[in-house]
Amino acid sequence: MGVKIIVGQIIHCVAPYSVAVIDSGFVIIDECGKIAAIGNASDLETTKKQLNLVAEDTLSLTKTQLLLPGFIDTHIHAPQYSNAGLGYDKPLLEWLDNYTYNLEKKYRDQNFCGTVFQAVVRKTLNHGTTTACYFGSLFYESSLLLATAVAELGQRAFVGKVNMTKLAPDDYVETPEESIENTLKFIKGVADLGNALVQPIITPRFALSVDLEHMKKLGVIAKERDLHIQTHISENKDEVEMVVQLYHDAYANVYDKAGLLTSKTVLAHGIYLSEEEIKLLSERQTSIAHCPESNVNLGSGICDVVNLRQNGVTVGLGTDVAGGASPSIINAMKSAISASTHLSFTKENYKPLNYEDVFYLATLGGAKALSLDDKIGNFQIGKSFDAVIVDLDVENSSVDYLSDCTPQELLQKLVFLGDDRNVIKVYVNGKIVK
Amino acid sequence: MGVKIIVGQIIHCVAPYSVAVIDSGFVIIDECGKIAAIGNASDLETTKKQLNLVAEDTLSLTKTQLLLPGFIDTHIHAPQYSNAGLGYDKPLLEWLDNYTYNLEKKYRDQNFCGTVFQAVVRKTLNHGTTTACYFGSLFYESSLLLATAVAELGQRAFVGKVNMTKLAPDDYVETPEESIENTLKFIKGVADLGNALVQPIITPRFALSVDLEHMKKLGVIAKERDLHIQTHISENKDEVEMVVQLYHDAYANVYDKAGLLTSKTVLAHGIYLSEEEIKLLSERQTSIAHCPESNVNLGSGICDVVNLRQNGVTVGLGTDVAGGASPSIINAMKSAISASTHLSFTKENYKPLNYEDVFYLATLGGAKALSLDDKIGNFQIGKSFDAVIVDLDVENSSVDYLSDCTPQELLQKLVFLGDDRNVIKVYVNGKIVK
Ligand SMILES: [Zn+2]
Ligand SMILES: [Zn+2]
Repeated sequence: MGVKIIVGQIIHCVAPYSVAVIDSGFVIIDECGKIAAIGNASDLETTKKQLNLVAEDTLSLTKTQLLLPGFIDTHIHAPQYSNAGLGYDKPLLEWLDNYTYNLEKKYRDQNFCGTVFQAVVRKTLNHGTTTACYFGSLFYESSLLLATAVAELGQRAFVGKVNMTKLAPDDYVETPEESIENTLKFIKGVADLGNALVQPIITPRFALSVDLEHMKKLGVIAKERDLHIQTHISENKDEVEMVVQLYHDAYANVYDKAGLLTSKTVLAHGIYLSEEEIKLLSERQTSIAHCPESNVNLGSGICDVVNLRQNGVTVGLGTDVAGGASPSIINAMKSAISASTHLSFTKENYKPLNYEDVFYLATLGGAKALSLDDKIGNFQIGKSFDAVIVDLDVENSSVDYLSDCTPQELLQKLVFLGDDRNVIKVYVNGKIVK
Repeated sequence: MGVKIIVGQIIHCVAPYSVAVIDSGFVIIDECGKIAAIGNASDLETTKKQLNLVAEDTLSLTKTQLLLPGFIDTHIHAPQYSNAGLGYDKPLLEWLDNYTYNLEKKYRDQNFCGTVFQAVVRKTLNHGTTTACYFGSLFYESSLLLATAVAELGQRAFVGKVNMTKLAPDDYVETPEESIENTLKFIKGVADLGNALVQPIITPRFALSVDLEHMKKLGVIAKERDLHIQTHISENKDEVEMVVQLYHDAYANVYDKAGLLTSKTVLAHGIYLSEEEIKLLSERQTSIAHCPESNVNLGSGICDVVNLRQNGVTVGLGTDVAGGASPSIINAMKSAISASTHLSFTKENYKPLNYEDVFYLATLGGAKALSLDDKIGNFQIGKSFDAVIVDLDVENSSVDYLSDCTPQELLQKLVFLGDDRNVIKVYVNGKIVK
């Protein structure tokens, strides 16, 4: 892999909720896939001399193309992929029983796993997801197959073997002993892949699937090995009620007692959090994966991202496939605007998220939510080059009439009207993966 | 055009909000593009004998394909098409000034019109819109070019020359005299096209763009010539306030005084209608074009479709391009579920629209809203064959894993995950237009 230079319109976030546009810019990517320089095209020649660049491969973007940081999906269930779009007329617990658990059980079958996992990784890459934070299945062998597919196809990802010892069908739970044992096997299995882009993540399904003692053990494993943690929180009123009844404490407090609220923890949903719980998450530097499409499909509610932001909680976007139907973070951006706008209809003087805010959530926000912002999320020198090139002018796309568009307007057309057809190139760590 | 038979999975609505699935069915289309028969595949041979069919062209659908009635867009602004996706961070009146009127003015230029109108008709056909109810521009010549494009490309449509004598830029209004004169010229121009599929529609922009006397004159024109009528109602709180201040009456009452509320009238939005206004619409058999994506993009509010339904008001779906970004009624179905679900979050025991309800809105509901249900909307014998064949299994589509899907599940995947790639054939009046 030689040095690469990309010249054209660049948009990225330089700080939370702060979008920077370079109308005519360049990025230089070194042999290791790291960003060596970024700037205005007028300074390119000087920079090349300073860096002593001799041979390089230069790509010049057209006026309808944008260079953007890769999209980050902070919450997606790989095994549920084949159910995408189905059963949303059912309430959550019925949907879990009829659709989700029945499907996830099948992941004992390694052939079935293999093809679905290849499909979901290919599909998310195709939509521009350079980093994904995956829930795998209960089975560590199949979850390892997911990690293997991710490594083979060149995505950056966290992969979790799900821990679930109760509140599920009899043939789709594990004993606490199996759960810990298989988690350790899984962690070792991922390490054995020897791919720095793919990391294991501790993944208790949610507070009703495992008991407190079990969660504490998982917390210890995470602490000892400095691992990331993911789970669900406060998705649904009934679920919140059940957690409070079972543990006699607020949902976030339960996870805190278990030692699961760390700066490397991402919690999906966070719709019904109290102000105290939000403060606790902020103190622990624990993040929220906002999954707006899933929250509509399953009738869960609206996560108030603006409030989380004001209280210092980092937020990223998640597709939550198959609660969300779409594997696309472009779609998640649009859905996040929709959810926030709908919230604004019921609140006085509430300024909903706009296209720039959700672009932040999809890129740097996601990187921060996964504690990867030292490595990815924008085009800062020294970070890995995880990026997408989008072209708003592709055949048969829904997007049209671009001749007078500014880069900001191209980004608007992408968010409101674009899809995978507009994602023409995807880079992870400098390597082309689409 | 010979007799055609299509055999396969068929879904359509036989009554309001009532979806019928024929797992293995057939439709026979006669030489004039009308539906000659529909039934179960097991009865096909008998039916062919009864109809004395000798030669015919039979298309057998695969297990991932569905035959559906064509989608109906009850509200779309053709001249705004090139602005789709832009400026939604602005409030409505600012958006109208900065984006909409500035663009619509350009439609004095016949070359510009021609290309945009061809593009919008091609695009909506590509997304499966067999019937569209278009707002044209202020200029009758350019609105005639829209009608011409529709006729050439084989869509079924109402096309309106917009009437607007005030509350717009000085160079984008007409005098009341010009307005009436050009409307009559436009009506004659459309009649001269001699295409039964394309009809003129009386189109005052909204109650603030024209005064009561002017609306009355337009009402008389509509009555004398038995024409359809379209306009906007109750989209935005500020707008409603201004109408009430100006006319000292409720919004719907203003249109009623003007004689504009007929059984052939479709009103876009209807978000802030009072119960009295809804009763009035019901009495007049006037319909609502629900435009859920636009209502989010412009921060307008939520139209309560369930309440309209309970009060006997017919509802269809509209894209409201460019208030809506997407020209797709598939997308409008998904957005309608989202809006209704968001409404359910704030109402006790509110059952939101599901995928079957929005499929009705997109097909038979739209036909009823446009008073075209004697001609289109489902596969009833004697109606015109306006239809789409969707295939959920096409290359590069977002939809995946279909092998075990029932027709109902295929429809769910279409609504939540499908796009124009899944619309593989489009028929208007029996003729293939995609
Ligand atoms: Zn989830
Ligand atoms: Zn409109």
